[in-house]
Amino acid sequence: MTILKVKHLSLIFLGWILIACHIESTLADRSTYVIHMDKSAMPKAFATHHDWYTATIDSLDITSVKNSHSLTSTRLIYAYDNAMHGFSAVLSLEDLQKLQKVPGFVTAYPDKIVNLHTTHTYEFLSLNNVSGLWPASDYGKDVIIGLLDTGVWPESKSYNDDGMTEVPRRWKGICQAADDFNSSMCNRKLIGARYFNSGAKAGNLHNESYRGSPRDIFGHGTHTSTTAAGNYVEGVSAFGYAKGTARGVAPRARIAMYHVAGTTGAGSDLLAGMDQAIIDDVDIISISMGTAWTPLDEDPMAIAGFAAMEKGVFVSVSAGNDGPYPMRVENASPWLLTVGASTIDRQNSATLTLGNGMSTTGWSEFPTNALLEDVPLVYNETFLACSSSQLLSEASSKIVICNDKYGENIAGQIQVVTNSNVAGAIFISNNTQYMEARDISCPGVVISPDHATEVINYVTSTTNPTVTLNFQQDVLGAKPAPAVAHYSSRGPAQTYPTILKPDLIAPGSKILAAWSPISPAGFLGSNIVLSSDYAFSSGTSMACPHAAGVAALLKGAHPEWSPAAIKSAIMTTASQVGNDGSPIRDNAANLTSATPLDMGAGHIDPNRALDPGLIYDAGPQDYVNHLCFLNFTRNQILTITRSSKYNCSNPSDLNYPSFMAFFNNTSSTTYEFRRTLTNVGDSIATYKANVSVPCGTSISVTPDILVFSEKYQKVSFNMSVDIKQMTKVMAHGSLVWEQVDGNHTVRSPIVVYRKS
Amino acid sequence: MTILKVKHLSLIFLGWILIACHIESTLADRSTYVIHMDKSAMPKAFATHHDWYTATIDSLDITSVKNSHSLTSTRLIYAYDNAMHGFSAVLSLEDLQKLQKVPGFVTAYPDKIVNLHTTHTYEFLSLNNVSGLWPASDYGKDVIIGLLDTGVWPESKSYNDDGMTEVPRRWKGICQAADDFNSSMCNRKLIGARYFNSGAKAGNLHNESYRGSPRDIFGHGTHTSTTAAGNYVEGVSAFGYAKGTARGVAPRARIAMYHVAGTTGAGSDLLAGMDQAIIDDVDIISISMGTAWTPLDEDPMAIAGFAAMEKGVFVSVSAGNDGPYPMRVENASPWLLTVGASTIDRQNSATLTLGNGMSTTGWSEFPTNALLEDVPLVYNETFLACSSSQLLSEASSKIVICNDKYGENIAGQIQVVTNSNVAGAIFISNNTQYMEARDISCPGVVISPDHATEVINYVTSTTNPTVTLNFQQDVLGAKPAPAVAHYSSRGPAQTYPTILKPDLIAPGSKILAAWSPISPAGFLGSNIVLSSDYAFSSGTSMACPHAAGVAALLKGAHPEWSPAAIKSAIMTTASQVGNDGSPIRDNAANLTSATPLDMGAGHIDPNRALDPGLIYDAGPQDYVNHLCFLNFTRNQILTITRSSKYNCSNPSDLNYPSFMAFFNNTSSTTYEFRRTLTNVGDSIATYKANVSVPCGTSISVTPDILVFSEKYQKVSFNMSVDIKQMTKVMAHGSLVWEQVDGNHTVRSPIVVYRKS
Repeated sequence: MTILKVKHLSLIFLGWILIACHIESTLADRSTYVIHMDKSAMPKAFATHHDWYTATIDSLDITSVKNSHSLTSTRLIYAYDNAMHGFSAVLSLEDLQKLQKVPGFVTAYPDKIVNLHTTHTYEFLSLNNVSGLWPASDYGKDVIIGLLDTGVWPESKSYNDDGMTEVPRRWKGICQAADDFNSSMCNRKLIGARYFNSGAKAGNLHNESYRGSPRDIFGHGTHTSTTAAGNYVEGVSAFGYAKGTARGVAPRARIAMYHVAGTTGAGSDLLAGMDQAIIDDVDIISISMGTAWTPLDEDPMAIAGFAAMEKGVFVSVSAGNDGPYPMRVENASPWLLTVGASTIDRQNSATLTLGNGMSTTGWSEFPTNALLEDVPLVYNETFLACSSSQLLSEASSKIVICNDKYGENIAGQIQVVTNSNVAGAIFISNNTQYMEARDISCPGVVISPDHATEVINYVTSTTNPTVTLNFQQDVLGAKPAPAVAHYSSRGPAQTYPTILKPDLIAPGSKILAAWSPISPAGFLGSNIVLSSDYAFSSGTSMACPHAAGVAALLKGAHPEWSPAAIKSAIMTTASQVGNDGSPIRDNAANLTSATPLDMGAGHIDPNRALDPGLIYDAGPQDYVNHLCFLNFTRNQILTITRSSKYNCSNPSDLNYPSFMAFFNNTSSTTYEFRRTLTNVGDSIATYKANVSVPCGTSISVTPDILVFSEKYQKVSFNMSVDIKQMTKVMAHGSLVWEQVDGNHTVRSPIVVYRKS
Repeated sequence: MTILKVKHLSLIFLGWILIACHIESTLADRSTYVIHMDKSAMPKAFATHHDWYTATIDSLDITSVKNSHSLTSTRLIYAYDNAMHGFSAVLSLEDLQKLQKVPGFVTAYPDKIVNLHTTHTYEFLSLNNVSGLWPASDYGKDVIIGLLDTGVWPESKSYNDDGMTEVPRRWKGICQAADDFNSSMCNRKLIGARYFNSGAKAGNLHNESYRGSPRDIFGHGTHTSTTAAGNYVEGVSAFGYAKGTARGVAPRARIAMYHVAGTTGAGSDLLAGMDQAIIDDVDIISISMGTAWTPLDEDPMAIAGFAAMEKGVFVSVSAGNDGPYPMRVENASPWLLTVGASTIDRQNSATLTLGNGMSTTGWSEFPTNALLEDVPLVYNETFLACSSSQLLSEASSKIVICNDKYGENIAGQIQVVTNSNVAGAIFISNNTQYMEARDISCPGVVISPDHATEVINYVTSTTNPTVTLNFQQDVLGAKPAPAVAHYSSRGPAQTYPTILKPDLIAPGSKILAAWSPISPAGFLGSNIVLSSDYAFSSGTSMACPHAAGVAALLKGAHPEWSPAAIKSAIMTTASQVGNDGSPIRDNAANLTSATPLDMGAGHIDPNRALDPGLIYDAGPQDYVNHLCFLNFTRNQILTITRSSKYNCSNPSDLNYPSFMAFFNNTSSTTYEFRRTLTNVGDSIATYKANVSVPCGTSISVTPDILVFSEKYQKVSFNMSVDIKQMTKVMAHGSLVWEQVDGNHTVRSPIVVYRKS
């Protein structure tokens, strides 16, 4: 016999795997299923397992048309014998039930449909082209979002202005040139870019903050601004994860960047930037930075934020990343929207397939497409701790199993594996906090202890166990989501505790947006830092521009709304339920239910915010009245308001869409709130109070029925909270105004909290 | 002063760099230049270097419009101060001349235009949509290419059938189902897929060759078939290199895959596959595998190839990868097109920028976007050999310089650096052979000793030298190209020396095409194997389907042409000149000129092959006549032809488009050739012989003027080669028939070779 050589240079060959493809069924009542079979149960009458599977399907009275070019008439899609035992086929539910009785049947599950989504949060927030806030606002077309941040990487495709109309004529901003920034780099999307670094220079801040340029060398400002309003960009991914089309929350809004900070920034520069943004006529300001727990009258965010609010500019700010400890929320001024961070339902994943064909999916973001096919799998109790790279060298070129129950935490284990010469690792861990904001530098996957049982059973009962890992997988619909991100700063506010903060949460964990290619975007192996034009980032920094984008859309849909009206609409329509049907959970507290101190009014729900029914409105004098009520001095108030036109003649409660009451242990307390609702829904409407009473309190609302006979009519009510016996530091409930003759519900959280 | 915290989790910050962008000039006579300036020469009158640069440009009488949104009116594009000193601007040649006289001027060069090309060879071969072979052949629309190879990965996007018309009705092939292959996986592009493994089974070949499936687990067959006829696929790259749209040479031709081999294959399976391909009615066969130096009558490639030729099927085969040693060419049957490999003009690159702003480009294919910005650069004579990972640990997290003159060869040095903890390396090497067919697993770039001078001057004269490496760069127009690939097998043929082999060369090095994602596609670090849907591969395996694709286009344009006519058209129009204007070079011989024993008739030139003017045609009996002339026995001839219908009544020279003569040292020899040309060009045409005489010989051509009075007319001539004094083993020249009244030239190489 002649032996043929297949010519090939330089590439070696490893094993192989069968790939199951999703094939769309044209029959509405049938779906593709993957069926696992016990091959040892095959009746001897069959020569091959393929025959057996075919006969099995035929027995279901399904026509099996093989060797045909016609896709729709094919029932048996694949017979599997290596990656798994079994087959895939198009089946009805009835077929499936019959199949479950066939000897040898192991399990069946619907074929996964892999959807490609890059900036997935727009979809997670139900924004769509058919109805709701996107079409109602024309995608934010004439709204200008000013961001105070680390600048922009103007070459990012997310700043392209394809499909953008002329810049609104009212725009007064400029595109400031610098050594590395040309004034022609602005366009109809990125309409302005400036820098303010005099304060940083004067303060001898870290060198990088000196930079006199709108250019972003960090990625932060590029990420936040394109999250809020990046244009559509096809073919984007972060190292192969989340492939698809990128876009911002308000894809047609305009971006104006005010570069005021590097790794740190000077408050004076922030003030200068805010000043300019207001002059330039921005509609929305987004600020993903903060000053830690500064008194209101020394806080540039509060001071400049007041000025913005005065001019009708809505300001969204990040709550900080100091969670989960209480009382760490920053940027807690009443006239700002203080945004905490949530997790989303996309899990960056790897698929793990055992030599016996069983398969599961776990968390991974290993930033390249590593080929690990049928690699020997090692289970060794001395390895489980994964605490020594040297020890792991005994498993060179194999895949090891690590369990963070036995040694290092997962961050340490990933480091140990990265520095070893094993081929990869399966990490057993329940540490969802790590996965929420960190990356993985070795070829590995993190699975939960529940899923690990199957893996350990296999590896301990098999002679030469192997495993296959497939990276760069996107799993959507991960549950529970949203959850409060563990790092999201929690209330109450130290500096202004009478207002419940944060106001709400928005997507903040593992957000994909544009990035500066000269800033690290990932880590690979022990010493490779990666660059990328798009990157995942996590933080309340990422949540803030989501809220700013939603506010921009609301401004587009309701140009007449005040900043307080926009805030009220967003807060009173926020959601308190996750995608598992249960109350939104807290990722820092073993996924127990989150409280309003974690998430404020709840998770942002843009389409509902479009039509809130009623709003709690407020203007500059209302905020001053409340400062007076809280005994701020005239000088403090002057510092904040920068104007003596405000007076303290009417100290009062603030007309805020949430309620915060304090108590002490020694005596019972009664808290009185007076609020006013403005009808922005149906012209004639009746609302009824529905109170969920915090434990240990009693609440009365007067009147408990509000009747509106025309649009924009204002009606006031009083709410009295009697706090009697409190065993805990905190209790919470809600007041919901439910429309009797319609669908609107207007919800405000109520928190009672022990004074420290 | 208040210090702002910019909120950010989990990503660290490194340094930064300025990026020069290419900006298209709308003024035809002006281009963008990058100008390096000596900052110390700045006159004191200027406050900043930016002012200096602006004034310098103004002095050229160029309007400098700054801070403007208008792109076209901007002359100064960038002022640089970190990555380099100087600026970029739009300048005329006259401006440039003036500028060169300005004090402080260092150097200037045109801005690089980065073109995005994936399957670049179609362009390297001048195939285009406007004129020539693509439109003339309708892109190979109704031509069927059969490939005998390792199968297909049917899910590859390159097999999509968007834009493909119905499968030609004459097609008789099938889409054979298997465990991992469904008969519905064929379509209008991939029209057939079968497997032949009985021979491999019977021969107990390596396990992987047993596989009964058309599926490709190696990538080889997926690569060759999509090189020949892959459909258009956007957004493709190989680990970030060669980003763009992939397509085959004949993007509308059909693919039929006959899976006959794994890492090795059985000749019997190849024969079965060829048999079936002929039955199925393929037009072109491409076989990128071979049997090493087997007598013709035992060579399945020769035997099955004869049958194909008999049926009018053109067969392209790879010459083998046993270069550069002489007499290693395989698949040398006269009725096959034996294809050697060439390099192309795309260099997968990294850009190296020194701390002083000087920049150069070198070879790299490091398969991810590593971020190496202003990293400390170490020059240390003890490191230069880069022969010990342990020694290099002294330069941890720095970039080292390795020179293959001092120690390990470059392959070894790359391995040492990969296993060390340095951040990256600059390899100084002239080893173009390594770069032609291998990859690089550490963050590194290979530069030539010439370019290294500047780097070493900088590093030895600077206090804290730094360097920036930017990966995933594509450089087009690299010179010299094409060159004969060092590995390409050379002639003469051992088994059939009277015919000059290889017949020609076609692109074979670093070819990008579709790949099997379960086969290794790259290597990263010390132990990460990478997967990809598209990959570079190098070999005569990659050259062969290029020629098959061109043959398919010629078949589409000239359906009446015989296999010998197609071969003659390709060979007599091949090019002998590289893109540097010099004769095509040999990459194995320090880039000295290649000979016909290296490259046959030269480098394939598809558009010229469309209209060759004259062809050397031949049919089955002509080949038999030549076997008789060479004293093949009746039995041998019967084995090859499988039919007793051929006889030996007229032994003769073969009407081949190249000439091969042998001599010995002891006596002078005269070689007589008789050949016949068929006019396929203008109906009335006169050609004149132009002979380039090999050293040590004299040549006469009779007649030396050929007059054709109608199309398809045949005219014969004799060529007599007198070999007198030969000092060398080999001499070569050419016979070119030049059209007197037109533009056709019909060139054949002439080789005289000493008998061993």
